[in-house]
Amino acid sequence: MTSQRISQLVKEMTLEEKAAQLLQLAATFYEDGDGQITGPMESLGIGEMEVNYAGSVLGISEPEKIIQIQQAYLAKNRLGIPLLFMADIIHGFKTIFPIPLAMGSSWDLEMAERSAEVAAKEAAVSGVHVTFAPMADLVRDPRWGRVMESTGEDPYLNALFARAMVRGFQGENLTHDTDRVAACVKHFAAYGLAEGGRDYNTVDLSERSLREYYLPAYKAALEEGCEMVMTSFNTIDSIPASGNRKLMRDLLRGEWGFNGVLISDWGAIGEMIPHGVAEDEREAALKAIIAGVDIEMMTPTYVHHIPQLVAEGRVDEALVDEAVTRILELKEKLGLFDNPLRGADPEAAREVVYCDEHRRIAQELAAKSCVLLKNEGVLPLRREQKVAVIGPFVQSGDILGSWSWAGSRETAVQLGAAMQKLASSDLITLAEGSDIISVSKQQLQQAEAAAQEADVIVLALGEASEMSGEASSRSNIQLPEAQLELIQAMKRLGKPIAVVLFNGRPLDLHGVIDQADAVLEAWFPGSEGGAAVADLLYGVVNPSGKLTMSFPYAVGQIPVYYNHYNTGRPKPAEDTDEQYVSKYLDIPNAPLLPFGYGLSYTTFEYSSLELSSEVMTPEETIKVSVQVRNTGKVKGIETVQLYVRDISGEVVRPMRELKDFRKVELAPGEAARVVFELGEKQLRYYHSDLSFTSEAGKFEVFVGPNSRDTLQAGFRLNK
Amino acid sequence: MTSQRISQLVKEMTLEEKAAQLLQLAATFYEDGDGQITGPMESLGIGEMEVNYAGSVLGISEPEKIIQIQQAYLAKNRLGIPLLFMADIIHGFKTIFPIPLAMGSSWDLEMAERSAEVAAKEAAVSGVHVTFAPMADLVRDPRWGRVMESTGEDPYLNALFARAMVRGFQGENLTHDTDRVAACVKHFAAYGLAEGGRDYNTVDLSERSLREYYLPAYKAALEEGCEMVMTSFNTIDSIPASGNRKLMRDLLRGEWGFNGVLISDWGAIGEMIPHGVAEDEREAALKAIIAGVDIEMMTPTYVHHIPQLVAEGRVDEALVDEAVTRILELKEKLGLFDNPLRGADPEAAREVVYCDEHRRIAQELAAKSCVLLKNEGVLPLRREQKVAVIGPFVQSGDILGSWSWAGSRETAVQLGAAMQKLASSDLITLAEGSDIISVSKQQLQQAEAAAQEADVIVLALGEASEMSGEASSRSNIQLPEAQLELIQAMKRLGKPIAVVLFNGRPLDLHGVIDQADAVLEAWFPGSEGGAAVADLLYGVVNPSGKLTMSFPYAVGQIPVYYNHYNTGRPKPAEDTDEQYVSKYLDIPNAPLLPFGYGLSYTTFEYSSLELSSEVMTPEETIKVSVQVRNTGKVKGIETVQLYVRDISGEVVRPMRELKDFRKVELAPGEAARVVFELGEKQLRYYHSDLSFTSEAGKFEVFVGPNSRDTLQAGFRLNK
Repeated sequence: MTSQRISQLVKEMTLEEKAAQLLQLAATFYEDGDGQITGPMESLGIGEMEVNYAGSVLGISEPEKIIQIQQAYLAKNRLGIPLLFMADIIHGFKTIFPIPLAMGSSWDLEMAERSAEVAAKEAAVSGVHVTFAPMADLVRDPRWGRVMESTGEDPYLNALFARAMVRGFQGENLTHDTDRVAACVKHFAAYGLAEGGRDYNTVDLSERSLREYYLPAYKAALEEGCEMVMTSFNTIDSIPASGNRKLMRDLLRGEWGFNGVLISDWGAIGEMIPHGVAEDEREAALKAIIAGVDIEMMTPTYVHHIPQLVAEGRVDEALVDEAVTRILELKEKLGLFDNPLRGADPEAAREVVYCDEHRRIAQELAAKSCVLLKNEGVLPLRREQKVAVIGPFVQSGDILGSWSWAGSRETAVQLGAAMQKLASSDLITLAEGSDIISVSKQQLQQAEAAAQEADVIVLALGEASEMSGEASSRSNIQLPEAQLELIQAMKRLGKPIAVVLFNGRPLDLHGVIDQADAVLEAWFPGSEGGAAVADLLYGVVNPSGKLTMSFPYAVGQIPVYYNHYNTGRPKPAEDTDEQYVSKYLDIPNAPLLPFGYGLSYTTFEYSSLELSSEVMTPEETIKVSVQVRNTGKVKGIETVQLYVRDISGEVVRPMRELKDFRKVELAPGEAARVVFELGEKQLRYYHSDLSFTSEAGKFEVFVGPNSRDTLQAGFRLNK
Repeated sequence: MTSQRISQLVKEMTLEEKAAQLLQLAATFYEDGDGQITGPMESLGIGEMEVNYAGSVLGISEPEKIIQIQQAYLAKNRLGIPLLFMADIIHGFKTIFPIPLAMGSSWDLEMAERSAEVAAKEAAVSGVHVTFAPMADLVRDPRWGRVMESTGEDPYLNALFARAMVRGFQGENLTHDTDRVAACVKHFAAYGLAEGGRDYNTVDLSERSLREYYLPAYKAALEEGCEMVMTSFNTIDSIPASGNRKLMRDLLRGEWGFNGVLISDWGAIGEMIPHGVAEDEREAALKAIIAGVDIEMMTPTYVHHIPQLVAEGRVDEALVDEAVTRILELKEKLGLFDNPLRGADPEAAREVVYCDEHRRIAQELAAKSCVLLKNEGVLPLRREQKVAVIGPFVQSGDILGSWSWAGSRETAVQLGAAMQKLASSDLITLAEGSDIISVSKQQLQQAEAAAQEADVIVLALGEASEMSGEASSRSNIQLPEAQLELIQAMKRLGKPIAVVLFNGRPLDLHGVIDQADAVLEAWFPGSEGGAAVADLLYGVVNPSGKLTMSFPYAVGQIPVYYNHYNTGRPKPAEDTDEQYVSKYLDIPNAPLLPFGYGLSYTTFEYSSLELSSEVMTPEETIKVSVQVRNTGKVKGIETVQLYVRDISGEVVRPMRELKDFRKVELAPGEAARVVFELGEKQLRYYHSDLSFTSEAGKFEVFVGPNSRDTLQAGFRLNK
C-alpha cells in the first residue's frame, strides 16, 4: 500500500526527475561536494541536474562524508527526496569475516547471521543504507573467481545461508532498527554458471535446471523479506538478465510477486549494447525498463532516454512511476524522509566499527570456517614443539579476501604473530619461503635454515586475494608453481609438514595434499584470521568446518559436484576395468575431496541408522536417526548430514541431495542419537512440466559426515 | 503409404512377434548359427523365440556369415520376414578413411560423399544393410573422446557434412542401388554436450540453444532422406533421450515429420533404470515406446514387457504396429522381401573391398584432411635431405582411429615406410623414440643417434587410437608426458624439427608447437595415412586442411569455440590491463588455434572485400566478393570462409557464424575474385519464442582464411 506521501511525490515529480531517481552513481560524483561537472560526469555524459537528482549512490563508507553529501544533496533537491546510500558489504564492513565460501564451510547459520548483523551495524553507523549482499549464486566451477563470494554448490544450503544473511543484515524492522541495512540478493540469475568459469560469460541451461538448482536460494532470500534484487551480468536463454523480461517481469515480479527494488549490476544496462541485444542506449533503456529494472547502476541510458521514450509512447509512464514508487518506498521504509541521515554517526562509528566484540565474533566464525583436509598425526601442534612457520602468508595481512575494501590488511592478525603469541616466540621461527608467484634461491635457503632447527614445518600457502573475486578467473587451479617448489624443498628435509591454505576457491591439491602430513583449508579467514588459525593449529579450537564445494581432482574434471545425476552407464567402482562406462581414462570420476568433507582432531563413528517407518505418506513424516559417537580423545563438533535420493523420477534426480544437517558437540566417548524428520514436502522437485510435486516410489536415505561416506537405508513414498 | 504386403504382415503377426521385431541383437546371438540358448541369450534373459524373431542384428560384416544367418533365420521365421543387418561403418568399412573430425578439416563435401559411397559399397557387398552413421553431434569439448567422430563445432558445416554422408551412403534409390546402405543419423540429440567432456554424462541446455546449435545437422540429414535416427545416451532436460517423449514423439516425429525407424543406442532403453527415470524394465519399455523408439538395441525390455503392457491397456497396440510397420517398410525399401541377401556377395566382396581404387580415394581424402599448424621454413622436406623419422607413430599401423573395427592396422601404410619409398630409404632413418605413454633411456639414446646424422628431424607423435572414441575421455588433453620429453630431448640437438600428430581430438599443444619448427596435424588418417602424410611432408601434395574445432589454449579454457557470444564486458585485446573485463588471469581468451585455421606451403593474400550493396532486403541478396592471390611459390588450394555477425538481435547472436565457403586453387601469382551470395534466409535465427526469423538491423560480414584473420565490412538488413 503506497503511502500518501509517496503518491504525492510521484505526482509532483517531472519526468526528468523520475528518470534521475532511477539513476545510481558512484561516490566519485559526489566527492568534490559542489556539484561541478567533474571528469566522471563527462565520461558518463551527464550533468549537474542528473547528479543533483540521482536517486542513489554507491560505495561511500565514511559517515562524515555521507552526512555532508546528503545535506548538500537535499539542499538542492526541489522535492526534498533524500539519497539512498548503498555499498558492497559482503563479508563484513571493517571487521572482516571469512569470505562467504568459508562461511559456508562453517555450516553455522547463526554465526553467519551474527556476522551479517555485525556488518550491518558497522555499515549503518557509517551511514550506509543498503548492502549488495547476500550473493546467492550456486557455483560448480572453481575457475570462476567469484566462487569466493558464494556459499557453495548446494541449493538447499545456499538458501539457508541466504536467509540467515538477510535476517542478519535487515533485522526485524528496518524502519525501527536504524542499526541495520537493507539487503540486496544477487546476482539474479545463475551468474555462477558462467561458461568456462570465465567471469561475465554466457550462461545457458534448461528452465528446469534453473528452477531446480539456481533459483531456490534467491527465492529463499526474498521469502525472508530481502528488500532488493540485483540483476546478473550474464545472459539467460541468450538475453542479458537486465533486459530479460521473462526472467524479471514474468518470473521475479509476476510469478514470485517481488515488489521491491530491482537494481542492475554496475553498468549492466548499458552492457546490453556489447552483449548484442540493443543497438544503442535508447534500446537498452527500453528493454530494461520493460523488463522491470528500477535502478540503473552507472550507465545513463534511463536518464538520457526514458523521458523521450515516454513522450513517444514507447514506454508507459506508469512503468516509470512504478519504478520510482518502489525506490521511494524503500527510502520511506528506511525512515529517510524523516531522518535522511538515519544511523550515520561519526562518533558512534568510532566506538562500534572494528570493536573488540566484533573482532571476537570474526575470530570465532573464522575458526569454524576452516576445514581440516588431512591430518596424519602432525596436528594439533604441541606448545613445546619447535615450529618453523614458512610461506608467503606467514607475515601477511592479505588474508581478508576479495570484497573487503573497507577492511584493513594492516591490522589483520597475521598467522606468524598469532602463533608466536599463543606458543612461545622463541620456539617459533618465521620465514617467507617464497612469494606468491615466485621464489628465489635465497628464500628457499632461509626456509631450509629455519626448518632445519624445527620439529615441525608449518607452510602458510595460497592465492593472493586478487586471484579470486570479480573478473579473477583462473584456468589453472593449482597453487602457483613457486609454492609447489617450496613444498618440494621442504619435503626433502624429511620433517612433518602441516600446510595452511589461504585461498578463494577449491584448488587442485595435487602437489600439496600428497606431500603434506596435514592440510588445513583456512580460505581467506578475515581480520582475525591469524588468531583463528593459530587456535586451530594448537588445538585450542578443534576444527569443525566442512566443504560446501567439491575440490576437483583436476581442472579437466570441471564441473564436478556432489548432487550430479547418475548416467545410464555409471562407473561401478573407480578401479573398474569395464570399458563402456562413463569415465575419464586418466583420472577418477570422484572429486579429490567431496562436498561436506572435513576432519576433526577427534573421530566420530556413525552407526545404527534407523527409519521410524519404511513407508512415508504425504501426511506422515518419518524419523531418520543415527548414532554418532566421539571415538577420539578430545571434544569435537560434528555436522551430521542427511541426504536423499529419489531412485526413479519423472525426470532424473540427483544421486544425493542434502535435506538436513545437525551439529552435535560430543565429549570423548560420548554418543548421541541424532534424529531428523523427513516429510513429503522435502521430496518435491520440478517435473518436466515445471510442476513442483513429489512422486510415489522408492527413495534412498544417506546419513554421514560428508556426502561420500554415509550409512544408507531406504523407504517408499506412498501417495 | 504402407504397402499391402506390410499391412498384411502386421495383421498376421502375433503380439510376441511384433515385440521381437523391435529387438536388435548383436552378432554373438547368431554366431553359433543353431539357435541354442547361448551365454549372451541367458545374460539378456531371452530365449530361442526372441532370437528367431528379432527384427535386426548388428555388428556382422562377413558376407558368408550374413548369408548363412539370413537363410537360417528365414527357415525358422513363420512369416518369412527377413533380418535387417546393421553395423557401425563410420569412416570406411575395410578401406579406412580419416576419422570424421579429420574429414571435417578437408572442408571437402564431395570427397566426404565419395568416402561414404566407398564405405557403402564395401559394406553392402559384405551384406550390411544399414550403417550407424553419420554422427551429426556438434562438439565443443575436446575432453570428450567422441569428438573424433564429429565434423566439429559448427552447425552449418556439420549439416553440410551430414548431408554429404547421407548421399554417399544411400545413393539415389536404396531399393535399386543394392550397393548402398541406409544411413542412421546419430545421436539424437546433443550427445556432444556431455558434462565435463565425460562420455554418457548429463546434458543440459536451453531449448533455444538446442534448436540453434545442436539440432540443425540432424535435421539436415533427415532432409537429405536419411532413413534412420539413433537416440543418444544422454539426458535432455533431465530425461534420457530414449524415453524423452517431447524430443522424440513431439519434435522428431511430430514437428519434423520423421516417419523412419528410430533406434535406441546400445542398451539405452534399459539404461533408463540406472539413469533413474524407470524403476524397472517394464517402465523403461513403456517410456521408450511412448516416446516413439522403434528398435531396442541390446536390452530386452520390449520383448519382455510390450505384450503385457498392451494386454493391460497401458500401451495402445497401434503404437506397436506403427513401430513394426516402420521397420518392415525399411526392409521393403531395401528390397529384402524380394532378395533377403540383397548385395551380399562373397566373391564380389573380394574384388570390391579394400580395392586399389578405394585406397586411392582414402589417400586423397587423408591428404586433404591434414592441417598444417605451423611451418617456419622446414617443410616441405627436400628429397635430398637426411631425415630422422622418430616417434611411436613412425612404424605403427595404429593410424586408423577408433571405429575402424573392420579395418586392418597390419596393412595400413606406415609413415616411415612411405617416406622411405618416396625419398630414398638410405636418407631416411627410423627410430621409435618413445612409446605412446612411456619412454626409456635406450629409446632416447637411439633417437639421438638417429637424429645426430640427420639434417631434419620428423617426430611422429600422438595418442593411441584407444585414447579417443567412445568411453575414452581424457581430463588432460596434452600429448603424453613421455612424448613431450622426447620433443625436449630432440630440441636440445638444435636441428629443425617437424612434428606430425596422430590423434583424435584437439590437443593442448604447449610443449609441441612452441618447440617444433613445423607441426602437421594428421589426425587418424586411415588406411593410406602414411602415404598421404609422406606426400604432404615432401610437398607432393600441398596441405589445404582447415580446423573445424578450436584447439584450446589449455584444458582449463574449455569450452572454447569460435561462434561464442560476446559478453557485456568483452576483453578489448589480449594484452589489456583493464580489470573488469571477461578474462582469465593466466591465459588468453582466444584458443591457441581458431576454427578454420590451416596453413599451406604457399601464402594467400586477401584484399578488396566488396559488397554489392550496403542494404539487403528479403527480396534482394547481396554479393560479397574478395580478391584472393597466391603470393607464394607453389600452387595451392585455399578455403575462403564467409562469416556474419548480427550486431544486435532479439537474443544475443554469435560473434561470427560461418555462412559459406569456397575452395579456390591458385597458381603462384594467380588471383581470383571469390564471390558469395548472401540473402535474408541466411540471417534467420531462433528467437526467444522459438520463431525462426531475421530482424532488420546492422550486420557485419567477415571474409578470410580462418575465423580469426578476416577482412570486414557491414550492411543493413531492411524489412
